[in-house]
Amino acid sequence: MTNNNFDTKAFRTALGTFTTGVTIITTTAADGTPVGITANSFNSVSLDPPLVLWSLAKTANSLPVFSESKFWNVHVLSVGQEGLSGRFASRGEDKFSGLALDDGLTNAPLLPDCTARFQCRTAFMHDGGDHIIFIGEVLKFDQSTLPPLVFQSGQYALAARKPREEVRLTQAEPPPECSYTEDLLGYLLGRAHFQMINRLQGLLEQQHLEQAQFFILSVLCIRDRLTLDEINDYIAYTGYTVDQADMNVLITGGHVVVEQNRYRLTADGREASLHQIAQAKAIEEELVEALGPGDAMALKLLLKRLIERTDPGLPDLWAVSA
Amino acid sequence: MTNNNFDTKAFRTALGTFTTGVTIITTTAADGTPVGITANSFNSVSLDPPLVLWSLAKTANSLPVFSESKFWNVHVLSVGQEGLSGRFASRGEDKFSGLALDDGLTNAPLLPDCTARFQCRTAFMHDGGDHIIFIGEVLKFDQSTLPPLVFQSGQYALAARKPREEVRLTQAEPPPECSYTEDLLGYLLGRAHFQMINRLQGLLEQQHLEQAQFFILSVLCIRDRLTLDEINDYIAYTGYTVDQADMNVLITGGHVVVEQNRYRLTADGREASLHQIAQAKAIEEELVEALGPGDAMALKLLLKRLIERTDPGLPDLWAVSA
Repeated sequence: MTNNNFDTKAFRTALGTFTTGVTIITTTAADGTPVGITANSFNSVSLDPPLVLWSLAKTANSLPVFSESKFWNVHVLSVGQEGLSGRFASRGEDKFSGLALDDGLTNAPLLPDCTARFQCRTAFMHDGGDHIIFIGEVLKFDQSTLPPLVFQSGQYALAARKPREEVRLTQAEPPPECSYTEDLLGYLLGRAHFQMINRLQGLLEQQHLEQAQFFILSVLCIRDRLTLDEINDYIAYTGYTVDQADMNVLITGGHVVVEQNRYRLTADGREASLHQIAQAKAIEEELVEALGPGDAMALKLLLKRLIERTDPGLPDLWAVSA
Repeated sequence: MTNNNFDTKAFRTALGTFTTGVTIITTTAADGTPVGITANSFNSVSLDPPLVLWSLAKTANSLPVFSESKFWNVHVLSVGQEGLSGRFASRGEDKFSGLALDDGLTNAPLLPDCTARFQCRTAFMHDGGDHIIFIGEVLKFDQSTLPPLVFQSGQYALAARKPREEVRLTQAEPPPECSYTEDLLGYLLGRAHFQMINRLQGLLEQQHLEQAQFFILSVLCIRDRLTLDEINDYIAYTGYTVDQADMNVLITGGHVVVEQNRYRLTADGREASLHQIAQAKAIEEELVEALGPGDAMALKLLLKRLIERTDPGLPDLWAVSA
């Protein structure tokens, strides 16, 4: 049945475009040794009876153990378990070293902190070319709220979920001669940033401050005793450039003092800044809940990748001073 | 083998946390009728021989046809094929109506515009509880560069891929008393926006303009004859507020004329704006290529979802004027 016209590498690449989750499947050898492997060949088969399947290479070291053992556990990995996935994908000896285990129904190792777990008993084994297909009856399962880890074309990933309805900011079509649309990344980034910061507006008004002062205080909260030029270097990313007048608002308000042209926070200034950051975090938590934790992680990851690509060499706000 | 302690709905939900791609599987009935269904139970089995599998409910209308037909095609759907996925998931009669088909090896329908396609011959069929497991030998496959559609917990999604190395903007740990970190969404949005717009700086300098003027011209390119207040309403999302002095730069430069307190673009102003937008699009294309088209789509989708959630009621720049 071997197909001589087949480019196995290209076939593997094409198969890889089918997105999957990542699982670790565990069992215990007759001598009590715990065994586990990373697999993305998992899938559901049947609801009633409850059956799932996965495939294991005939060349796998663990094949004899899985063939002989009656029980195995499937762990659908969460986003935090990328390291565990790598560990169980390797040929290392003591994959379970240092891992805490939960109590399971059977003697198969049960790993914590997964998105979902299925404790199974082998129902059938089928020949599948260079793999064996294991079909298991699910004896018990559980699920957490942790977002799942995703695998696509050989890379780990996070899912950015699409609502049922297409998300459109305008109902109108842009005029045909106009090439500035709501799909421009620059537009979306600017508007998303403005709207986030805008949610702080109420607090800033209570504090008799403006957005520029929010950015100045945030920087001074991390790095104290800065000159006006240094402050501008650090808040450049906000699009703001501040001047003496902006600083004077903070001095008059008792938030900042100046000594030898260097500004530092007063206790009141630090309190005002921490209050602002706490509110920014509360706004963010609300949005993370609205988007979903996995989607929020995906958004942050993509923004960081974009920032890495476009960094003109901004100074590192958090770097330890020389 | 039925497990009476089983909550089938909870089991289905737990299984759904395992992320998958989306496939349409097609075949042709003995009478020549094309048949197709949406399935996410696809997975790879073997490289040599090349085998794949999927499961079909025993209650499916199409089971007799798939059981009798020798050949079927698996289409790994691309992000643009969400509508097609819905069409083939329904029980409609003429799912193929109006669809263009490619020529395949066999008589099974071959749909265009997919991420990958596998043309198969049934190798084995196995009983799998309330489903039948189809294992097919892959006779031919192909792959496009279109990003794949993803399915997770009952929702369509896009993948945001994670690089092998963790993406970190600073190498330093923030001081312990500081709660302002690079993980704050507001920080990431501001910096990403600033850095995108910053890439226009060279062009703006050639044009003797600043970023504020870029935003003004972009708005006037979509909506002409605006007052200063209206312009500020429309560019509010950028964080900028412009004044008479900013407008005078544009008037002096010949980009804008003012009539009865309303500003409109000159031909030169329109050209300058279109030049800016073209460059913004070129920058964006470069970044889309760097991130990957699927990741770029995921980023835009997530930004739109965030903007929807935080919109304080900004005026619709593209809405048709009353």
